[in-house]
Parts: sequence; C-alpha cells; structure tokens
Amino acid sequence: RALTIGLIPGDGIGKEVIPAGRRVLEALPSSLGLKFDFIDLKAGWETFEQTGVALPEETVQTLQSCNGGLFGAVSSPTTAVKGYSSPIVALRKRLSLYANVRPVKSVATAAKPIDMVIVRENTEDLYVKEEKTYDTPDGKVAEAIKRISQRASSNIASIAGEIALRRQKIRAAGNPSIHKGPLVTVTHKSNVLSQTDGLFRVAAKEALSNPKFESVKVEEQIVDSMVYKLFRQPEAYDVIVAPNLYGDILSDGAAALVGSLGLVPSANVGKTFAMGEPCHGSAPDIQGQGISNPVATIRSAALMLEFLDEEEAAAKIYAAVDANLEEGKLLTPDLGGTAKTEEVIADILRRL
Amino acid sequence: RALTIGLIPGDGIGKEVIPAGRRVLEALPSSLGLKFDFIDLKAGWETFEQTGVALPEETVQTLQSCNGGLFGAVSSPTTAVKGYSSPIVALRKRLSLYANVRPVKSVATAAKPIDMVIVRENTEDLYVKEEKTYDTPDGKVAEAIKRISQRASSNIASIAGEIALRRQKIRAAGNPSIHKGPLVTVTHKSNVLSQTDGLFRVAAKEALSNPKFESVKVEEQIVDSMVYKLFRQPEAYDVIVAPNLYGDILSDGAAALVGSLGLVPSANVGKTFAMGEPCHGSAPDIQGQGISNPVATIRSAALMLEFLDEEEAAAKIYAAVDANLEEGKLLTPDLGGTAKTEEVIADILRRL
Ligand SMILES: CC(C)[C@H](C(=O)O)[C@@H](O)C(=O)O
Ligand SMILES: CC(C)[C@H](C(=O)O)[C@@H](O)C(=O)O
Repeated sequence: RALTIGLIPGDGIGKEVIPAGRRVLEALPSSLGLKFDFIDLKAGWETFEQTGVALPEETVQTLQSCNGGLFGAVSSPTTAVKGYSSPIVALRKRLSLYANVRPVKSVATAAKPIDMVIVRENTEDLYVKEEKTYDTPDGKVAEAIKRISQRASSNIASIAGEIALRRQKIRAAGNPSIHKGPLVTVTHKSNVLSQTDGLFRVAAKEALSNPKFESVKVEEQIVDSMVYKLFRQPEAYDVIVAPNLYGDILSDGAAALVGSLGLVPSANVGKTFAMGEPCHGSAPDIQGQGISNPVATIRSAALMLEFLDEEEAAAKIYAAVDANLEEGKLLTPDLGGTAKTEEVIADILRRL
Repeated sequence: RALTIGLIPGDGIGKEVIPAGRRVLEALPSSLGLKFDFIDLKAGWETFEQTGVALPEETVQTLQSCNGGLFGAVSSPTTAVKGYSSPIVALRKRLSLYANVRPVKSVATAAKPIDMVIVRENTEDLYVKEEKTYDTPDGKVAEAIKRISQRASSNIASIAGEIALRRQKIRAAGNPSIHKGPLVTVTHKSNVLSQTDGLFRVAAKEALSNPKFESVKVEEQIVDSMVYKLFRQPEAYDVIVAPNLYGDILSDGAAALVGSLGLVPSANVGKTFAMGEPCHGSAPDIQGQGISNPVATIRSAALMLEFLDEEEAAAKIYAAVDANLEEGKLLTPDLGGTAKTEEVIADILRRL
C-alpha cells in the first residue's frame, strides 16, 4: 500500500522532530508492504513572515490529496497580529479533522502507571474564533463565541466510544493495562453553561447509549473536578472526552503526569485523513541545540498509522519507542538524560 | 469592632462545615476585640425545591448589610432546570465580589512544599451565562458568550499585584516561603483568543506596570501550559491571575497538589465585603456521616478576616489549623485519617 504523507515541520523544534518521524516511517520493515511518499509543506510564523500567510493555500490543497500528515509545531504570537491566525487551528477546520486524540501512557517503569486517552473535539467551541471588541465608557470590552453543536458532540463521543472498545480488545489480547473496563468519562461544565456544555453532555451521552457501546461504562465529570481527579486518581480513567478547550487543557495536564510533553503524541483525525502532531510546542528556547525529544513525533507518526488502519506498523513503532524508554540509557534532557536528538532516533531505528 | 457575618450553609456537607467556621470565629481570644453577629441565610438546591428560588432576594439584601459572609456549598443540577441558576455565581455578581482568591499551601511536612495563590476574576468570562440554542438541519446548536472587559481584567490584576506585595511582606517578616520574589503570572489563551484573552493579557500587564508594583515580576503563561507547569514545577509560582473559567480550573488543579480539596479555602472579595467559601463542593456522597473536613471552611473564615483587615485574627486561625495538620493525629478520612469532623473542630478550637 502506498501512502502519501504531507510533512509540515513549522517553526522551532518542529524542524528537528519532523525528520525523525519521516525516518522512522521509512525504516519500517518491508514485510509490512508499506511505501511512503513524502511531500514537504509550509506553515507557521516563519512562513507568515516570508509570505504574509501563515497557512498557504497550497499546503491545504496538497494535504487534501494526501493520506496523512505530520505537523511539527508553530510559534504563534501572543498578541493579535493582523493577518496572522494559528495554522494548526485552521488546518483542523479546513480538513475537517474533527477529533484530536491524545494517548497518555507512562512506560512500564513509572512509579504510577498511567494509561489513558484524551479525545478532544477539534472544530468548534471557542476555537470558532468569532470575536469582536467594542468601546464602552468603562474601556474596551471583547466577546468571543463558544459554539457547541449536537452533531460534533455526538461524533466526538462516538469516536471516544470506539477508542474505548479498541483499547478493550488490546487489553484482551494480553497487553498490560491499568483500568479494566471500557470507560468513557464525559467532561463538561454544564452546571454553569447549561445550554452549550449541557448540549455537549446530552449529545455525548446519547451517542454512547448506542447498543454498539453496550459494554462501555459512561461517567461524567465537571471540568474543574476532572483536572483535580486527573492528578489524584489518574488510574481511574480510560478514555476522557471533552469539548475543544477543556480537551486542550486536560491533555496538557495529563501529559504532566507522564513526565514530559516531549513524550506525548496526538493525532488530528477526520473521516479519511489523519495528521500526527506532537503535543509539545515549537520550544524556541532549545531550538538548534540538537536536544529536542523526537519521541512525541515518532509516536504521533504511529498514531497516524493507527487511524489509517495500519495497526501492525503502528505497534512496531510503539514497541521500539517503549524499548528505548524502558532501557532508559538514551534519553533527551527533558527526561533527565544527556542524549542528543540524533542518538535517540538512531536507538529507535535500531530497535525497529 | 462588631462584625456582622451572613452564614449560607447551602446543601450537603455545607451544613456540616459552616458551623465549624462560626465556632472558630466565636472562639477567637477576646483580646482581639472582635464581636461577631451571625445571621443564618438560605440558598441552594434545597431552597429551590422548597421555594422555587435558589437565591432568595432576602439572602442578597441581608448580605448587603453584612461585613462578611461564609458560603458552604450548593448542589447544582447538571442539566438545565427551569428557574434554577447557581446561587454562588449569582451572589458573586450581585454583591460585586469581583475577585476570587485561593491560597494553596501545603503544610510544613509535605514532600513538595507548595505556597501559591490563584486570583480568579469572578464576574465575567463565560460566567455571564448568556446562552442561546437554535435548531439547524444538522441538529441543535448552542452558543455562549465569553465576555472580557479591560476594566475587570485590570482590577483583578491589581489585586493580584497587591497580594504579591503582601506576601512579600509576610516573607520579610520571617515566615518560611518557597518562592522568593513577588511574582504575578498572567494566564490566558491569547494565541487562540486574540481579542478576548488578548484584552485580558494586555490590561493585566498594563495594570501591573503601575509604579507601585515596581518590585513585582510579571510573567505570562498560556493556560494549557500553565496547567502542565503547575504540576511539573509548582515551586516556580507565587501569584497566578486568570480570567474566571481558567481560574476555576487552575484552582482545582492547584488544590490537587496539596492533597485534598478539603484543605483549600477561598474568598470572594469586593470593595467592602468578603465572603469565605471552601473550595470543595456539597459532596452528597459523604453527607451525614460526620466525616467532612472542616479545615477549608475554617481557613476560609480566616481568609475573609484578612480581607476585612483583621489580619491578626486571621493569623491566629491559620496557626491553629497548621498546628493540627502538622501534628497529623486528628485528620478526616480525605487526608488519610480517621477523625470525625467534630474531633478536628475541637482540636483546632483547643489550639486557638
Ligand atoms: C497552539 C495552539 C493553538 C494549540 C491549541 O490550543 O489547540 C495547542 O495548544 C494544541 O494543543 O495543539
Ligand atoms: C459550583 C460552581 C458554579 C463553581 C464555579 O464554577 O465557580 C465552583 O466550581 C467554584 O469554583 O466555586
């Protein structure tokens, strides 16, 4: 099977880690029968500075004809810059990548084993970015719209349910696991936002009441108490589903549990396309030192393959990464090691 | 000085902990010259069921003539119930309690010492609760307004700056501390919400550039990475200021760091009125067993006194609570102990 993969390194360490993802995919055993074509694409702050556009139309169109993609990271300005808007947020919308999936898993040697997946709605909520500012006698006031639809809420909950079932299968196949039952925890703040988060809550629960999810237990948590519980009893969770912004916050929180953002992959998933994206940002502070952690990107490449139904290839990559982490000899500084990016990549390639 | 304090136990364990706050205030040494009058007031789900109103007008009006208040907790339904709306959110608005202050501090014996304050804007953001729902061919869609004003953002940042300066004084007076400098970390998501969170960011930084905050260092964090850092390096923070919803989430997150929500107090602060409120909820699961932790409420009573300029009285209460926790013999089950609420109260009263 031939797979065309768009590569968007973006800014900062995105440029250092995306090549790692590419090399790992290229090094997969030929017995898997996969052939990759890679296309280099532009997006981000540097692209904006060069061309006046953060997400060139060509990037979007090329990706539309790809099977999958790998997105590095972009540096976004913290203040509004005319004409600039985050390319990753735009890409998720333009390519209808309606689910953001972030598995958070500690290595076997961790003090507290963690194994959960955060499933984040990826297209609406406050990310519709409909904002306005007006003047009042008391100064400026700005408003943003938080939009929640029954349809997107229902879709994302179904994906969460499917992931819970898939994890159950993986467990049944003898893999070590922490939480036993397939469980989806619906996160919201409907005690305050009774209409928007109330709709998310009801639509999600309705979707999960479908007979195909009969074996899946459904629970709910208010987002503030979800963050609290995430830290107090992470072992109690399996799949957590949330609207866009809470999902963004929860997935960084969950990443903190496993030691470094440099370990945590994500995938932006649509009906026929998946784009891997490491959870860390562009980290300009460490750029150019050759010490960025390639693991999140390598795992993101595997996660992308999972959603392209290449589970065997994905499993091979995960195993190579886990072996590297479990041995613990070649780790980048964010994990307390002294290895260079290049050494970690070489070690993982060797184990493939 | 005579202080009139409104008591709103609310629902669930609110009814068990508010009396603890009252008894501690009554037991303060007479040398402090404080005389308390308490007025019992109603609000919450039970009140709604009895009277059809969650926050009776009488409660609001009586509080308006009080110096301070103690609010327990209310049980809010997770689905919209006609006529019901969270009384604590309404009270904060009706009484112009524009700041929510949550000090999060571990006892001296903790493995990782934590000492920070989350300052949360308390009147706007998504808590304006302006929502609407409409039908589309694809199903229901709901929208909520997130409103951020320059004025409220500036006010809350100033309070954060003042708290940072006050903490510096307490440290200078020889109290043990973790973070040295006065530091305010402004939290937002302006990389996505450039207008609303962008306004919060700019207004907060402007307020903190006032010469009176010259000694205060100002930093900023994107909210998702703030949650990550909160767990990875809590010792790096002093005062964290945030819009309403992020503040809600961050304060529960910070509470997880010190072991139990049952320890964490808060105060809702206005120009001339302060209302203490334990951070835990109504916890119907443990109600009636006599095991709820009174510490958060007792500390909230002290925090209320601080904002009523009775710092000496507040310090006495904090010291009694700290002594109880440091000895560690009489702790409620949420802290791994076996003591009853009543025994913990008695121990703290004894130490006053
Ligand atoms: C960079 C930013 C726009 C983005 C987001 O908020 O979605 C990031 O935090 C992420 O989680 O991918
Ligand atoms: C009960 C709820 C409305 C409230 C809030 O979100 O403010 C609570 O979480 C709090 O933090 O006081």
